Amino acid sequence: MNHKIINGNLLIFDGEKFKTEKKDLYIKDGIIAAIGEYAGEDTKWEVTDAKDRLIMPGLINAHTHVYMTLLRNYADDVDFSEWLFNRVSPVEDRLPVEAAYWANLLGFAEMFRTGTTSYVDMHMYKCMSAKAARDAGIRAFIGRGLVGNDLFEDGLRRYEEAMAERKEYESSRIKIILSPHAPYSCSEKLYRQVAEEAEKHGLLKQTHLSEGITEVENVLKETGKTPVKWLYDIGWLNEKTILAHCVQMRDDDIGLLADSGASVVTNPASNAKLGNGFAPAVEMQKKGVNLCIGTDGTSSNNTLNMFREMGILSLIHKGIQKDSTAMPAQSVIAAATVNGAKALGMKDELGEIKEGAQADLIFIDLKSPSLFPNNNIISSLCYSANGSEVESVMVEGKFVMKNREFLTIDYERVCWEVEKITEKYL
Amino acid sequence: MNHKIINGNLLIFDGEKFKTEKKDLYIKDGIIAAIGEYAGEDTKWEVTDAKDRLIMPGLINAHTHVYMTLLRNYADDVDFSEWLFNRVSPVEDRLPVEAAYWANLLGFAEMFRTGTTSYVDMHMYKCMSAKAARDAGIRAFIGRGLVGNDLFEDGLRRYEEAMAERKEYESSRIKIILSPHAPYSCSEKLYRQVAEEAEKHGLLKQTHLSEGITEVENVLKETGKTPVKWLYDIGWLNEKTILAHCVQMRDDDIGLLADSGASVVTNPASNAKLGNGFAPAVEMQKKGVNLCIGTDGTSSNNTLNMFREMGILSLIHKGIQKDSTAMPAQSVIAAATVNGAKALGMKDELGEIKEGAQADLIFIDLKSPSLFPNNNIISSLCYSANGSEVESVMVEGKFVMKNREFLTIDYERVCWEVEKITEKYL
Repeated sequence: MNHKIINGNLLIFDGEKFKTEKKDLYIKDGIIAAIGEYAGEDTKWEVTDAKDRLIMPGLINAHTHVYMTLLRNYADDVDFSEWLFNRVSPVEDRLPVEAAYWANLLGFAEMFRTGTTSYVDMHMYKCMSAKAARDAGIRAFIGRGLVGNDLFEDGLRRYEEAMAERKEYESSRIKIILSPHAPYSCSEKLYRQVAEEAEKHGLLKQTHLSEGITEVENVLKETGKTPVKWLYDIGWLNEKTILAHCVQMRDDDIGLLADSGASVVTNPASNAKLGNGFAPAVEMQKKGVNLCIGTDGTSSNNTLNMFREMGILSLIHKGIQKDSTAMPAQSVIAAATVNGAKALGMKDELGEIKEGAQADLIFIDLKSPSLFPNNNIISSLCYSANGSEVESVMVEGKFVMKNREFLTIDYERVCWEVEKITEKYL
Repeated sequence: MNHKIINGNLLIFDGEKFKTEKKDLYIKDGIIAAIGEYAGEDTKWEVTDAKDRLIMPGLINAHTHVYMTLLRNYADDVDFSEWLFNRVSPVEDRLPVEAAYWANLLGFAEMFRTGTTSYVDMHMYKCMSAKAARDAGIRAFIGRGLVGNDLFEDGLRRYEEAMAERKEYESSRIKIILSPHAPYSCSEKLYRQVAEEAEKHGLLKQTHLSEGITEVENVLKETGKTPVKWLYDIGWLNEKTILAHCVQMRDDDIGLLADSGASVVTNPASNAKLGNGFAPAVEMQKKGVNLCIGTDGTSSNNTLNMFREMGILSLIHKGIQKDSTAMPAQSVIAAATVNGAKALGMKDELGEIKEGAQADLIFIDLKSPSLFPNNNIISSLCYSANGSEVESVMVEGKFVMKNREFLTIDYERVCWEVEKITEKYL
């Protein structure tokens, strides 16, 4: 179906800043065909009136674990090792693979409601993430978490799962990436192997890096290098690398990150909630690192709401810097849209409303009590929105939520299935 | 109308912790008449089915300026003096008094949508706050901002306005309090006069205190004391005193606050956003200060959403302390309910679901995508909720919002009036 969206306010990025323009929007075959006037071949348009609505690029959640939605608030206000080893991991081990399918759909429901159209995932259960993403119509960048000493020996099963997921589910919307878990669960050899495989197959790679102090101290002790320097020296960091967290930056870590062209995903709520502290996001931006935003999983955040994450990111850094002009709304919105697209190697196709880009769009009700009056829409998106202002969501030119009704997810059924699973396994 | 609420989960405070209980709730003449079984005189009940709903005490926003909703996002990402002197103040000066009426109603709409039933206000426009609160049915503690050297000379007009508001609007729901603005706009004499008047009339008093570094340094230079010590020494701090901000704590400030019995309202989003930093809320709680939560006004936050504020409070302090167990959900919810009630001198009547208390209640949809599965409802309220899960709101036994429809506010009209005002004066 081709769409003509009339009377809306479009959030346009001019290469440096976002601004709003009141123009019509034409969407053909999933692509933004024209802004303002359409001069192409005539076609049948489905017309949507977007009066009092802001239409903006769907948000890109650049680091999360959607299957964990099942464990939302399962282990809070406890210390990190209790959280991971005694609470979360034992449950993950006993959950059946199918549980992850329903958990993913539940997560997508929250993501649509709060304006996310793309996400970068690290998961644990064979094919379930991709299957759920396919069914829900979300744009997904999915990595099976890899661990071990050798990708083709003790790590082989997981790598095969990743490749099976790729074979069965990869599409224009679903891309498989390679995701070694972290320096404390993967050897240097495995990281090197992953880099080679990624290069060979043209895949993005993602890993957790420098999240907690213990990790950094252990890598320093073993290698004499920070985790960033260690990966930099083996050539792992480049423009096809996405690094989650990067909280504990030492020495010239930030300079190395900037130099490498790798993207960093800051997860301010998760890092604060687990007691890991605050990532030096302002310093990273100053040195030219491509900064993106992620929510992490719901058992360490505990929500997949990117609007909440944007607000928290800005507030935390204004507070730390004691500077009301630090981490302004403009740069936060860029981090959640254009920077995410750049990290995914899709800067011409995602994160912006422009001709030729994918029609991944969210429609925001400007008359919401949390946004009105609209004195400054850019500010409102960062400082006032709670995510509930998102009324409709489109991915690749297809509505997946319209007037807050899910069109691709049977939400009642999802709740019923999730309840059965939590009763049995949690 | 008397209400019987069935099938709901009640959030009950046992004196130390919150827990949920599945019990019926009986509300008679605006008061919680019974929990579980009703043994009183028979009456006609309006029955509400609260299946899959959590019923909790309405949140208490202990410091805000609701009239500022008109200026939401009017001046962001600029420094504090530009914000106050060149942007906000000139507009406040030229706005007509009536503007504040519509601004307040707009603010109440956002507050109801996000679960606030009581608030403590400092305002600028004669009687408009109380009039709007009366019409909307919210519970209000309203103080005309007082400034000057002498309450009965240069401060007289404002004090008379406060007293006029009291005479015309005070009721079981609306209480007038005395609100000298801040140490940098009020003399010691005025603070002393306010304390005497408050004592004479049995009123609560509220002021901004130690919000920014400049204020603290100036008071130190002029008096040799911190703002806290200065007010402590003139006997201004006691159990009927509510202090907003208290970010810049020096010397033994926190000890004096604890010793005095005054309540402190922390405004984490505002303090961060304006670059004032983070209040030492964890240390205050440890020393026994009664800690409450406020959003401040929407031009320094920029929302009146107490759920967002609760989440930010917890995350910021876990991050600062590098301790995932710091500022746990239980203490955050207490700060937004029972501690607020204590600050208001109404601990037997507000902030808790218990027999004899006011029926100020909010109904939360537990099947919201942001809360499901309900592995830990207490955690969800602090870490997962964005405020949009609030479905219905009751104040003094009367629904003011039901199924997200406002029953006391003509929201379309409010938007129309606000738009007219912003077009003309902003």
